[in-house]
Amino acid sequence: MTDQNTDQPTEPGDDEDFTPRRELLRQIDEALDAGDAARLEALLEPMHGADIADIIERLTPAERRKFLELYSIEMDGEILSEIDEAIRDEVIEALPKEVLAEAVREMDSDDVVDLVEDMDEGEREEILSALDDADRMAVEQSLTYPEYSAGRLMQSEVVTAPEHWTVGEAIDFLRAEDWLPEQFYHVILVDPRRHPVGYVALGRLLSAKRSVRLKDITEDSFRTISAYADEGDVAYAFNQYHLISAPVVDNDDRLVGVITIDDAMSVLDEEHEEDILRLAGVGDESAITDSVMETLWQRLPWLMINLVTAVVASLVIAIFEGTIQKIVALAVLMPIVASMGGNAGTQTLTVAVRALATKSLTGSNVWRVVRREAIVGLLNGLAFAVVMGIVAWIWFDGVNLAAVIAIAMVVNLCVAALAGILIPLGLEKAGADPALASGTFVTTVTDVVGFFAFLGLASAVLV
Amino acid sequence: MTDQNTDQPTEPGDDEDFTPRRELLRQIDEALDAGDAARLEALLEPMHGADIADIIERLTPAERRKFLELYSIEMDGEILSEIDEAIRDEVIEALPKEVLAEAVREMDSDDVVDLVEDMDEGEREEILSALDDADRMAVEQSLTYPEYSAGRLMQSEVVTAPEHWTVGEAIDFLRAEDWLPEQFYHVILVDPRRHPVGYVALGRLLSAKRSVRLKDITEDSFRTISAYADEGDVAYAFNQYHLISAPVVDNDDRLVGVITIDDAMSVLDEEHEEDILRLAGVGDESAITDSVMETLWQRLPWLMINLVTAVVASLVIAIFEGTIQKIVALAVLMPIVASMGGNAGTQTLTVAVRALATKSLTGSNVWRVVRREAIVGLLNGLAFAVVMGIVAWIWFDGVNLAAVIAIAMVVNLCVAALAGILIPLGLEKAGADPALASGTFVTTVTDVVGFFAFLGLASAVLV
Repeated sequence: MTDQNTDQPTEPGDDEDFTPRRELLRQIDEALDAGDAARLEALLEPMHGADIADIIERLTPAERRKFLELYSIEMDGEILSEIDEAIRDEVIEALPKEVLAEAVREMDSDDVVDLVEDMDEGEREEILSALDDADRMAVEQSLTYPEYSAGRLMQSEVVTAPEHWTVGEAIDFLRAEDWLPEQFYHVILVDPRRHPVGYVALGRLLSAKRSVRLKDITEDSFRTISAYADEGDVAYAFNQYHLISAPVVDNDDRLVGVITIDDAMSVLDEEHEEDILRLAGVGDESAITDSVMETLWQRLPWLMINLVTAVVASLVIAIFEGTIQKIVALAVLMPIVASMGGNAGTQTLTVAVRALATKSLTGSNVWRVVRREAIVGLLNGLAFAVVMGIVAWIWFDGVNLAAVIAIAMVVNLCVAALAGILIPLGLEKAGADPALASGTFVTTVTDVVGFFAFLGLASAVLV
Repeated sequence: MTDQNTDQPTEPGDDEDFTPRRELLRQIDEALDAGDAARLEALLEPMHGADIADIIERLTPAERRKFLELYSIEMDGEILSEIDEAIRDEVIEALPKEVLAEAVREMDSDDVVDLVEDMDEGEREEILSALDDADRMAVEQSLTYPEYSAGRLMQSEVVTAPEHWTVGEAIDFLRAEDWLPEQFYHVILVDPRRHPVGYVALGRLLSAKRSVRLKDITEDSFRTISAYADEGDVAYAFNQYHLISAPVVDNDDRLVGVITIDDAMSVLDEEHEEDILRLAGVGDESAITDSVMETLWQRLPWLMINLVTAVVASLVIAIFEGTIQKIVALAVLMPIVASMGGNAGTQTLTVAVRALATKSLTGSNVWRVVRREAIVGLLNGLAFAVVMGIVAWIWFDGVNLAAVIAIAMVVNLCVAALAGILIPLGLEKAGADPALASGTFVTTVTDVVGFFAFLGLASAVLV
């Protein structure tokens, strides 16, 4: 990648991964250590706000304080809107009031909403007072919609035209306006009551003759989004329909804003982050900038739940203490049955969670997928029953022991497959996030069933 | 969401999740059963190609054959480019040659590349022969770039203008052209040797006076992407810099195509899919449409690896058979130590894999994060040592046993934290995907260490 300010040749196989070069980071460290504000400014001058935000995030809290002292007057709306939530308060507090006010004035209304939505009344008022009346009202309007809704995601800066206009009229209008948003991709046609009736891509506007009516060059793919729609569904729609921007309407179907694809892309990214972290039993707010204590508090509750379920599995083992004392080989082999069940269950679970997230697992194919997972579970069970039966037979020279572990393996892998698909489906049906806690549920089931099947059979057959 | 063809009111809390309504799916089933092509066409007519593709994906193979028989002449480029790779061959084979040729002609060059890149020579030739010479050359040019590179992702349809043009000249040119791509968001300025030197957003082109020079209204954020750049890095750049489209250049810095944000969004989505599936030890090609045998073959290898590691852990237990025979409580408690280690390790691992994927874990903060994880591991270990010590003490009435499990817990949670961060870092450093196989490595380490620490200490102290 070459920036317009630089002149680096791009070569195949070049280590271009779009992250700031190590050399630059070293120079920034030096400037920080030397307290050299001018040097720091010069180093950061060619950089994109998003990269500057990343650098701020990677500093230690002490370095960050120093950075903000030296650089605070340069902080603008672009950098501020890119800063991770986890350290945003810290940054805002370090900024002089005038700098913060100026930065907020530069931001689009959706970025201001994102900035203030988690603040308390007092802080929020202070930030919003920097805006002029129209912008403040737009932000306050956005904040009336529920959290994680399209209404919070949209920006209120919209380019509209009456539906009866021609291309020439639209171009003259755009040339005369000086408040146009920085980025826009469509002109939205509205009727006299501000209901959106279609939109025209700027490319078509540019390539049509002045006399063409806007109505005749609207896009086929026109869709409006309710301000109350869930942001995850909005991201899905953008990805599914290759939307670039979409008008947002209120309950009366009146235009209230527009969502652009870059915001939808951020939501998609966040939703993935949540899924992957929740599947692993990590708080979905976790960030690489978190302190030791923040990290500890996110992880402890999940480990505590895991401890309880592990103790439940141990209680199952305890039932068969007598059997284990007689045949100690059971203690050696039992974790294998449990571990295989846990892994097979996690495989199914992950595929199910992912399919639910992408809406590819729905009413119309759910039973077919459950059936497939059950059959795969059975076949996996049979395969590993044979393998593990042979291993146990050779290892402990007992054909009965081999038969016991083989049967337990089939039982546990079938149960694992069913638990892996039915638990996330059940959570989804109950209105919960299928990624949340389902891993713990599934491994609890496979541990308990694994130990019970193996030790129970052993008690019945071998003792 | 309301389509322009429908007239449903949108209400807050409405169940608008952008997936086809169950009622519609039932009607489609009926039309399929009745073999009623006209009815099927009428039902699908208002639908977006992406939704039709989803419906085709959700059918059983038998239903799908029937569907394609009835609907094949309606299949267009839009539907075809949305069909999941897993069933694409099946669909292509079912289409009459003329329909396929027409569909391919409608597609943008990047979608054609996506369609043919995994085909063998003969099939590919057949598809490409449907294209006119210029389009075929564009596709063949794209195919010379490595798989998963920007060159494969780009479309060759680009709107350019000489850098010295005015707004008026550009608009006249656009009005005169009839080959313009369906969607474009920038006019790329090129010098006489076709090196891109900047780009103009269409919004600015529309709002500027005819006499303004294009050079004076270019975007600040202009970046070019090497055709050899990895598609994951391209997606990262779009997300990081809020790009809408970006010019792609060859080794001589000459413009060869353009990548648009919707393609970058798809890549981002796929990369997430890969991460989440690989973390769970599921083949990253897995799809909800896979058959039983395909699913089985994706999952068996990972379960086989897990079996080997589980046997290794069992060998550790086998060393201490004598001790377990004397104190059978050890067999009851040992899975708790291993399970807690496995969970804590997975937590750290997931955060690390995710941070590596988003480039937020890099050289500049890696040791700080390793240190944080180690301290969190120690603190978690101490917390659960106390809890589990008390549980073991009460349960088995042995203070020495309690001390042994407490110490083993501290050891295993510290090791889990270190393994969880160092293993993905090591895989990344070695050029491998940190998501791939690291889960198995980490749980192997925590199982082996957990059993060894607990049973080893018990043998030393209790017997």
